[in-house]
Amino acid sequence: MSERSCRSALLTDLYEVTMAAAYFENGFSDKASFELFVRSLPKERGYLIAAGLDQALEYLENLQFREDEIAYLRSQPVFRNVRDEFFEYLKAFRFTGEVWAVPEGTPVFGEEPLLRVTAPMIEAQVVETFLLSTLTFQSMIASKAARVASAAQGRTIIEFGSRRAHGPEAGVLAARAAYIGGCVGTSNLEAGKHFGIPVFGTLAHSFVMAYDDEEDAFQRFINIFPERNVLLVDTYDTMAAIEKIIRNGWHPAAVRLDSGNLLALSKLARKRLDDGGLRKTEIFASGDLDEFAIAELLAKGAPVDSFGVGTALATSKDAPALSGVYKLVDLESEAGISYRAKFSHEKVTYPGRKQVYRFHHPDGTFREDVIACESESLEGAQPLVECVMKNGKRIKAAPKLREIQDRAREERMKIPADCARLREPQKYPVTFSDRLRALLRAVHKEMVVKQ
Amino acid sequence: MSERSCRSALLTDLYEVTMAAAYFENGFSDKASFELFVRSLPKERGYLIAAGLDQALEYLENLQFREDEIAYLRSQPVFRNVRDEFFEYLKAFRFTGEVWAVPEGTPVFGEEPLLRVTAPMIEAQVVETFLLSTLTFQSMIASKAARVASAAQGRTIIEFGSRRAHGPEAGVLAARAAYIGGCVGTSNLEAGKHFGIPVFGTLAHSFVMAYDDEEDAFQRFINIFPERNVLLVDTYDTMAAIEKIIRNGWHPAAVRLDSGNLLALSKLARKRLDDGGLRKTEIFASGDLDEFAIAELLAKGAPVDSFGVGTALATSKDAPALSGVYKLVDLESEAGISYRAKFSHEKVTYPGRKQVYRFHHPDGTFREDVIACESESLEGAQPLVECVMKNGKRIKAAPKLREIQDRAREERMKIPADCARLREPQKYPVTFSDRLRALLRAVHKEMVVKQ
Repeated sequence: MSERSCRSALLTDLYEVTMAAAYFENGFSDKASFELFVRSLPKERGYLIAAGLDQALEYLENLQFREDEIAYLRSQPVFRNVRDEFFEYLKAFRFTGEVWAVPEGTPVFGEEPLLRVTAPMIEAQVVETFLLSTLTFQSMIASKAARVASAAQGRTIIEFGSRRAHGPEAGVLAARAAYIGGCVGTSNLEAGKHFGIPVFGTLAHSFVMAYDDEEDAFQRFINIFPERNVLLVDTYDTMAAIEKIIRNGWHPAAVRLDSGNLLALSKLARKRLDDGGLRKTEIFASGDLDEFAIAELLAKGAPVDSFGVGTALATSKDAPALSGVYKLVDLESEAGISYRAKFSHEKVTYPGRKQVYRFHHPDGTFREDVIACESESLEGAQPLVECVMKNGKRIKAAPKLREIQDRAREERMKIPADCARLREPQKYPVTFSDRLRALLRAVHKEMVVKQ
Repeated sequence: MSERSCRSALLTDLYEVTMAAAYFENGFSDKASFELFVRSLPKERGYLIAAGLDQALEYLENLQFREDEIAYLRSQPVFRNVRDEFFEYLKAFRFTGEVWAVPEGTPVFGEEPLLRVTAPMIEAQVVETFLLSTLTFQSMIASKAARVASAAQGRTIIEFGSRRAHGPEAGVLAARAAYIGGCVGTSNLEAGKHFGIPVFGTLAHSFVMAYDDEEDAFQRFINIFPERNVLLVDTYDTMAAIEKIIRNGWHPAAVRLDSGNLLALSKLARKRLDDGGLRKTEIFASGDLDEFAIAELLAKGAPVDSFGVGTALATSKDAPALSGVYKLVDLESEAGISYRAKFSHEKVTYPGRKQVYRFHHPDGTFREDVIACESESLEGAQPLVECVMKNGKRIKAAPKLREIQDRAREERMKIPADCARLREPQKYPVTFSDRLRALLRAVHKEMVVKQ
């Protein structure tokens, strides 16, 4: 995309702006609170790792409509009856609201608010699309990465999926989220530069094929990269390539297996490397890997030291979308707070601003979460949602990505094992507080009866 | 992402640049040809619609390494032994190669080259990651859109998936690809502005909920948008909302059903609207729709005029990645052409620059495709791969998006019905020419024997 496009205020749905115009023209002056959450987790997900908040807040801090964007809106027939004042309003538009959110790296579950916006209605509304795509995408990838990292039992995982990500930006954001979820690094250079994520790379089959002879290709690569090099050994014949390495007295940091029977090949390769005096040369495996394949390889004793995971991770291939929603929960005017809830078929949402309270067992593992009214205080529980932005400005610097990764690893270990397991995880107990349920009933009575 | 990030030359994998350094330091001067193709189609895909070429060519025309990007590379320990000359080379780097490609909107199948790059090796190598993520993502979404459009049998499909796309850019690119595949428009404003795609929108439940009374909310919306308005009727009670519309004498362009039993509700709504004198008010349905749900609704007689399709389309949810690869096929030096092929386990690739020849039945439908050497000429067949860039510059202007959409619709109709059907499509016949298979055998003999 062009440089202008990737920061455009038009990275939103048309209806956000038509509603904005309708609010403006109707003089709607209430502040609105919206909560962003994932309705329910995909079948194979026992938990999510919150991610993407830094990009969400960066967006809110920088959001403004440029002249050409406003001109585009004006040119749309749908805005024919909207007065100039609305477009003047857009010119001066800035996000001035308050944001509460769950810190990145925190495990969360279905129904739990990841983020809450309280702002004048128009501001709170037009940011919906960007916030949803940013938070749910990164949380989805961080969660997938956490599963992969957990399957690898401490072995190194490198995110390799940029080429299969949903466009170039998705590759960079996936690398960030995968790092949060537990990857040691990424192959994506822009993610390395922009976010300070460690970058890793090996060489491609094309490099080996570019020279008439595999041995010649290896030698030329080693000449330039004498240290920490990873040699790709499966272009022609994996074991023959390993013989060449031993014969030449090379000491690559690792050999990479990218095709074939990774279990059998890794065992053969390990044995031959050890026998050939290359005990320090590690085995790096890649090729259509995911958490299930890694768990199986390790269960069968594959002597793999690190894994490159691409497509499955950068697209969360088995669950490539989360049911993220952004719902109006209250309106605030001089007359006070008016609660809002949605009662559409199968899509009930709870009213009011909420807090998520997490209870722990004495050993530190999570016991249960209770979603409560913000005003409640549940003794002995840890509140997860915290204020991160006031008057459109962050109230503190973003944590370092490495700290977020640490948090994700430490907190993920506290999820009950049955809820964290890879296949058919149990549902972690999340309930709504008595007061919140009473509020829902009251709002239901008031709103539906009125219609 | 920042404006700099979205045009960065670092939107690539580290190994592309380490290989570039190794080629540079070794004085590798051959021109390389790489072909980009999808190895095999996902189970539920009978065909793909080529898309994303315009963004790929725009990238190639504009690619350059900025000072800060080069400084980042230099700072990486892996480049410790690389001489200054390489970084000087990167400063002056531009893509100067030749590109051949299948025009956007063309149906293609597994193994068929979508694009071929012929350029000095380093240039051809470093663009791999961006080209793959751009072409395979958009082709995947265009293909999904074509399936949805085909299921809708001429009814209108609007792409609504930005909020569930893999980040903000993915939402814009998905809107473009979905338009190519057959959507009438998108909700994404940036896609509207940047690509000229028609934009559509309705209103959200939050708007209805922002007012104490649904009728009041409708009236306020209609006041500002008296024409072509779509009223969302399922916030509280769908049929009660329709009664309010009739009672007030409003004539919305459409009512939108977003939850509940869409089959039953669309029939009830249609009948009540007709009885109430609103025959011209259309029914717009949305809510977790995909090609299968739409086909089923229409098979059961749901009187729906248009569909909003979001998550399933913008993420190609049932098949969220394609097995796109970018493979070295030959090297060209003063001594002539040297063919390259890959013989790794289960990952054989054919050598040499190729052409895809499409044969048609007398009625215009596709009969079979033959992948042949570029130098072959197959009588009576249509060659699909054409030259689009020389010396790093496009040789003609990109077609209008509308023309690409027309091509996709017209050409898609020519796919044999068994291969185009939604479920368990038959494999379309794609074979390799005799000469290409002979070349593969010759290269195999030469390359593998040599190792």
